[in-house]
Amino acid sequence: MNPIQKQSEFRVPKRLQGIEKSMIRQIADRALPNSINFGLGEPDLQTPDCVRNEAIRVIQEEQNGYTLQAGIPPLREKIITEYPHLNLKIDDVVVTVGSSEALFGALMTLAEDGDEVLVPDPSFPAYWGIIGMTGAKMTKYRLPAEKGFAFDIEEFKKQITNKTRVVMILSPSNPTGRVHTRQELQQIAEVLQGTGIYVISDEIYRDIYFTDEPPASISEFYDKTLIVGGLSKAMSMTGWRLGWLTGEATAMKSAFVLHGYNVTCTSAISQKAALKAWTDEGQQARLNSREVYKKRRDFIVKELETQLGLPAISPEGAFYTMLDVRSICDDEMEICEKFLQNHVITIAGKAFGDETKGFLRLSFCCDEEKIREGIRRMKEALGK
Amino acid sequence: MNPIQKQSEFRVPKRLQGIEKSMIRQIADRALPNSINFGLGEPDLQTPDCVRNEAIRVIQEEQNGYTLQAGIPPLREKIITEYPHLNLKIDDVVVTVGSSEALFGALMTLAEDGDEVLVPDPSFPAYWGIIGMTGAKMTKYRLPAEKGFAFDIEEFKKQITNKTRVVMILSPSNPTGRVHTRQELQQIAEVLQGTGIYVISDEIYRDIYFTDEPPASISEFYDKTLIVGGLSKAMSMTGWRLGWLTGEATAMKSAFVLHGYNVTCTSAISQKAALKAWTDEGQQARLNSREVYKKRRDFIVKELETQLGLPAISPEGAFYTMLDVRSICDDEMEICEKFLQNHVITIAGKAFGDETKGFLRLSFCCDEEKIREGIRRMKEALGK
Repeated sequence: MNPIQKQSEFRVPKRLQGIEKSMIRQIADRALPNSINFGLGEPDLQTPDCVRNEAIRVIQEEQNGYTLQAGIPPLREKIITEYPHLNLKIDDVVVTVGSSEALFGALMTLAEDGDEVLVPDPSFPAYWGIIGMTGAKMTKYRLPAEKGFAFDIEEFKKQITNKTRVVMILSPSNPTGRVHTRQELQQIAEVLQGTGIYVISDEIYRDIYFTDEPPASISEFYDKTLIVGGLSKAMSMTGWRLGWLTGEATAMKSAFVLHGYNVTCTSAISQKAALKAWTDEGQQARLNSREVYKKRRDFIVKELETQLGLPAISPEGAFYTMLDVRSICDDEMEICEKFLQNHVITIAGKAFGDETKGFLRLSFCCDEEKIREGIRRMKEALGK
Repeated sequence: MNPIQKQSEFRVPKRLQGIEKSMIRQIADRALPNSINFGLGEPDLQTPDCVRNEAIRVIQEEQNGYTLQAGIPPLREKIITEYPHLNLKIDDVVVTVGSSEALFGALMTLAEDGDEVLVPDPSFPAYWGIIGMTGAKMTKYRLPAEKGFAFDIEEFKKQITNKTRVVMILSPSNPTGRVHTRQELQQIAEVLQGTGIYVISDEIYRDIYFTDEPPASISEFYDKTLIVGGLSKAMSMTGWRLGWLTGEATAMKSAFVLHGYNVTCTSAISQKAALKAWTDEGQQARLNSREVYKKRRDFIVKELETQLGLPAISPEGAFYTMLDVRSICDDEMEICEKFLQNHVITIAGKAFGDETKGFLRLSFCCDEEKIREGIRRMKEALGK
């Protein structure tokens, strides 16, 4: 119940009580000028030419009014080709305002008061805020720090209750960069089979992987899945706000209705330009970003370990590494703060859950020169 | 309570139960090929050159990543100049994905279970869907058909209860094109003063008016107001998804948090290009669209009355007229259907409430030639 307030004051509705800006933003917003940014997960690469040129063409040549609320059909045709195992129809896809709106829509469609939503610990903190807004209770399964944040089926199983309505899967993971193996996903599917529990599979980092094979999707093994996807990370299109939600048809019907009332549709220009992501140049751009991040991963992990003498996780995907500072502090926020003061943004592990306490997340969305300089400043801040 | 369902089926959450696509979309989606479109409220004018050229420039020259969640500061600076009487700070503005997301965010921030949200009858039906999602009950105040849908303070007053949490004001109105006088707004403010009720003032048609003076805003008289605005209509930017929510500071704080979790931010390209709406060319474009719609208004109203012999409302703003078909049918849906079959899209009045039963809404978002041809087809369909 809300506390009784004077009618004349703004009353925060139940769905928004206690929900604040994520700690990631709180730290990043305190950055000093000219900081090296290992904070936000935002590609520094330019949006590929093929997308930008197409956007320019449609601005010059076409009228850019409302699209169908679900998005332009040719784009939805392309999106369903990403998931050939699902036999999707274009009506099972909604083009969203980045993967953010897809995530928001999926949770608002699947969870409500009385439900539990099971999320990995660590995970992307936007989940917590949105789950709070749905009225559901958040529960967590550990990705144990002592196993390098790998998935543990026993930890997962013991958190499933008869109130669990939704399970979040995030692979490649933010913040750890770990990728689920096919076997792990099969184990999850076995546990969930017949329960009616829905999975939201956050695959926004799907195209950024450093393994031989692309990451598998839980949707290959479990049909009650909604997939959150988009082009923001692999095509460096964060500012274009182009994502999607797709998957199990009955849930998508409700998600579509919510989407229409929420935003009507996403930018017509971004939608039309996004079609170019499925051309040869588009595929080449995705491959290129994969290669860039792989080189940087090898560089930053080695540099952190050699310069600072601290262990760092070598991720299998996404563009984050976790630096283990447990040997030099009780609370990683102290170190995060020291780095901030010396013009380097890193994110304290506690921003992502309990398991990552004692770690810092560093994104490698900057070039080798900046990475080198950032680590030099970190070393300096540590008095090494 | 939800009906008990098998765990293995999708359960529509309470917030989405019974909520469907609006009747406007349902009618428009059934249009035959080559129809004349008096249906959707979407400008047919091209987005002004100054906006398009700036968008091209930023795509060519800049990196377009995430902006601040609330929007780029220079745009928020421009937006607050629209409301000089409010002494807004840029932190009191959130740039949204069109006015849709502003409306969604405002209602989700202000209303919840147990509240009443009072809306005009007739009004824009998206209100009904979103109010349903908030959990609040929708109540209505009549804009009586017998007074040409003008505001009636007695009708308004008698609907205010001690559960009323939010009042929706929509001026210029969709669907009627009526504009509230300053005196009417003062009357509303007097009734609400001291109640703590919030007003959501939907001002998306604010720049499209045919009166000597621009429409007044309830925010000039009542401080607990959130304003929904945007460039979609006056700058023909529907597909760019650029709107805003602004107003009373404490409510805006919560609305900002919701916005961040919902969509992160709106398109960086649309935001940067939108700045040009406040240049001389931008102002000229707004003036131009006003003149175009005014000429069309005079044309369509006269043509409807002379060709069909039916009365039509001459609107003071927006780009809609209401055609009175009560003299030729019991249910305007029959006439709407006849027109659809003869390749003309109009929207049955019941799509907007009870007061507009017996009327059809026609938008004049097409040129005089199309208006003439559409009315010819309507005449034909009526066997006149």
